Amino acid sequence: MADPVTKLIVGGVTSAQGFLAAGVHGGVKPQKKDIALVFSRVPAAAAGVFTTNKVKAAPVLVDMERIRSGRGQAVVLNAGNANACTGEQGLRDAREMALLAAQGLEISEELVYVCSTGVIGHPLPMDALRRGIPEAVKALGPDGAAAAEAIMTTDTVPKTAAVQIEVGGQVVTIGGMTKGAAMIHPQMATTLAVLTTDATVAAPVLQAALRRAADLSYHRITVDGDRSTNDTMLLFANGEAGAPEITGPGEALDAFQAGLTAVSVALAKMIVRDGEGATKLIEILVRGAQSDEDAARAAMAVAQSALVKTAIYGRSPNWGRILAAVGYSGAEMQPDRAMVRIGPVLVAERGGAVGDRSTLDEVVRYLARDDVQIVVDLGLGKGTATVWTCDLTENYVKENAGYIS
Amino acid sequence: MADPVTKLIVGGVTSAQGFLAAGVHGGVKPQKKDIALVFSRVPAAAAGVFTTNKVKAAPVLVDMERIRSGRGQAVVLNAGNANACTGEQGLRDAREMALLAAQGLEISEELVYVCSTGVIGHPLPMDALRRGIPEAVKALGPDGAAAAEAIMTTDTVPKTAAVQIEVGGQVVTIGGMTKGAAMIHPQMATTLAVLTTDATVAAPVLQAALRRAADLSYHRITVDGDRSTNDTMLLFANGEAGAPEITGPGEALDAFQAGLTAVSVALAKMIVRDGEGATKLIEILVRGAQSDEDAARAAMAVAQSALVKTAIYGRSPNWGRILAAVGYSGAEMQPDRAMVRIGPVLVAERGGAVGDRSTLDEVVRYLARDDVQIVVDLGLGKGTATVWTCDLTENYVKENAGYIS
Repeated sequence: MADPVTKLIVGGVTSAQGFLAAGVHGGVKPQKKDIALVFSRVPAAAAGVFTTNKVKAAPVLVDMERIRSGRGQAVVLNAGNANACTGEQGLRDAREMALLAAQGLEISEELVYVCSTGVIGHPLPMDALRRGIPEAVKALGPDGAAAAEAIMTTDTVPKTAAVQIEVGGQVVTIGGMTKGAAMIHPQMATTLAVLTTDATVAAPVLQAALRRAADLSYHRITVDGDRSTNDTMLLFANGEAGAPEITGPGEALDAFQAGLTAVSVALAKMIVRDGEGATKLIEILVRGAQSDEDAARAAMAVAQSALVKTAIYGRSPNWGRILAAVGYSGAEMQPDRAMVRIGPVLVAERGGAVGDRSTLDEVVRYLARDDVQIVVDLGLGKGTATVWTCDLTENYVKENAGYIS
Repeated sequence: MADPVTKLIVGGVTSAQGFLAAGVHGGVKPQKKDIALVFSRVPAAAAGVFTTNKVKAAPVLVDMERIRSGRGQAVVLNAGNANACTGEQGLRDAREMALLAAQGLEISEELVYVCSTGVIGHPLPMDALRRGIPEAVKALGPDGAAAAEAIMTTDTVPKTAAVQIEVGGQVVTIGGMTKGAAMIHPQMATTLAVLTTDATVAAPVLQAALRRAADLSYHRITVDGDRSTNDTMLLFANGEAGAPEITGPGEALDAFQAGLTAVSVALAKMIVRDGEGATKLIEILVRGAQSDEDAARAAMAVAQSALVKTAIYGRSPNWGRILAAVGYSGAEMQPDRAMVRIGPVLVAERGGAVGDRSTLDEVVRYLARDDVQIVVDLGLGKGTATVWTCDLTENYVKENAGYIS
């Protein structure tokens, strides 16, 4: 069987048919747009993946309850305040946000999801939301750009992506928007992602597909190892493309899964590229591991190593730090079988150095790029995994040292 | 029973009777002293704790073999080159280092241990060691200062500590030296520590005591989460104080354990305080956990959080980042029972904020200190743990971005 065809298009959360969005300034943050709304003209199948942090923000608790229905029609999001560690008041505020949207949209409150991102431990400024959410309803339109902008916090660019696939001869679109620049880590970390599709997908199939896509995208990126209280990935499938319903395994699901994973990976990589203070996107490919899980463990340890991340930033060909990170990752390894490549340059083989000073000079030249690849082959089996991270720079420290003070 | 009396004294690796040390410039590093030697006049009981990294440096492999005898008389150490990822040649070089020391000291090669620290993946410059080790033998004397200086890499200060205890009415001294400023992490991370005592302790008891001390000191500190290929903690007990032998549980072992743990904690805290780029020592005390293991897990997650570490650096009273770190630590927690105190200031209770703007102002004033304490009470049980870390600053990035290039 040929791989399903996935066509990347310019687009975002409103690329799929029947979705509208808006982004407005409500006053949670000074000046910047801070309230976003995404709306499907018809009720849709809904799926969600949420933070595994035991400290869950109020909107996450509300969404986790609602997603059990497998149905949804709108998401209201705010930046500037996470509504986390806010107790009972926080839950009331999250529900009121959904209610305000539902009233404006004239739909059932239960079909509205809520996402918040920003500072932890402060009550939501509900005045701003009571003013802003009705405005967002009025501003709904076919352009997703303002919504993508409204969910930005320390992000420097809005992040959207879309693909088209074919299901039963019918073109189906999957698009989305995301935000996040720190507290990024597997199992999610103030990452918000809203994905929309006009495919017709049964809710349990949709949930499984979203989890699979998350495992290969959002759960494979790390900026600083911190995991947030608010991470949420939502996917709505409203069936507006009129393609046959996807109800289980088969060619249609394969195509849908490939498209959904492609959008998710594209969005996740945008987050890493925009990591706080980052200057480089680093892809870490581990192969030859005893299992895919072991490969992911090893790749994640390299991606999280502050020493590796600072070395890449400084264009330092310090491959020993890469092997050391694999060594403490918990992945099965035999040092004398391990190979390390930085970009096109083989730097270590059988656990030891390869080449000479000119080899390292070649690495230094390669590390001038914005996109860097590290390949580790453990020489043990067939397990592979790819993880994305960014370099660690002085600006990460600067941005996080003065966040709320 | 009263707690054993442990008296901190000014001293180091030669404070215990019968130990000599030296530190010389051999030429592994330009200019700086780079070879250290510690020697007991008589063969001693020996214990060791080593890195858990699967990529183990050659000297670690050699020491792990030799420590099985439970005997030792000397340690030769070098800074500037880790002799890690150096294959068979590395093992030959590590053994030659020991042999050179043994020949100079006229003792059995099997009684000599080897430690290296520095860059990974480069062969040891054996000329420098062949020249320097005999010089170190000649330079042996009762002052431990030069040895402590010779093992420094990015350390900015030499690190030594000593205590005195009583065993059977006899004063016994335990002292030591250590190095380390990055790649510091539980399960050790380019940390070298050589501890000496004139107590008489059976080898298996000594090993258990060292492991216990390591668990409460070196395994409770973190600078950057990286774990090195070279970490080694060695302890020699030569019996020169003439105190009764400690062969098992009892008052004497309690006193010895308390003293050994106190020296180890003092040395470990010096490492964190000297963490690369650090401006503050941060103590994290978690209590009220379901178990001590859970408390350690929670405290370590807070200590490793880049967001917490940058916030403390920036004097930002961002307690939400502390609770979020506990939330993803894996420790059992119920957010609505958690309490957070920063120094003397209660900032969160039952998972939510306490006080007002003036409370946060008080935290900002407190964070001007060099020594900062964070207390988290999970309100679930009796588990407690203390972990030490340092803040994360622009200078950590600067130091690590250009280490070898």
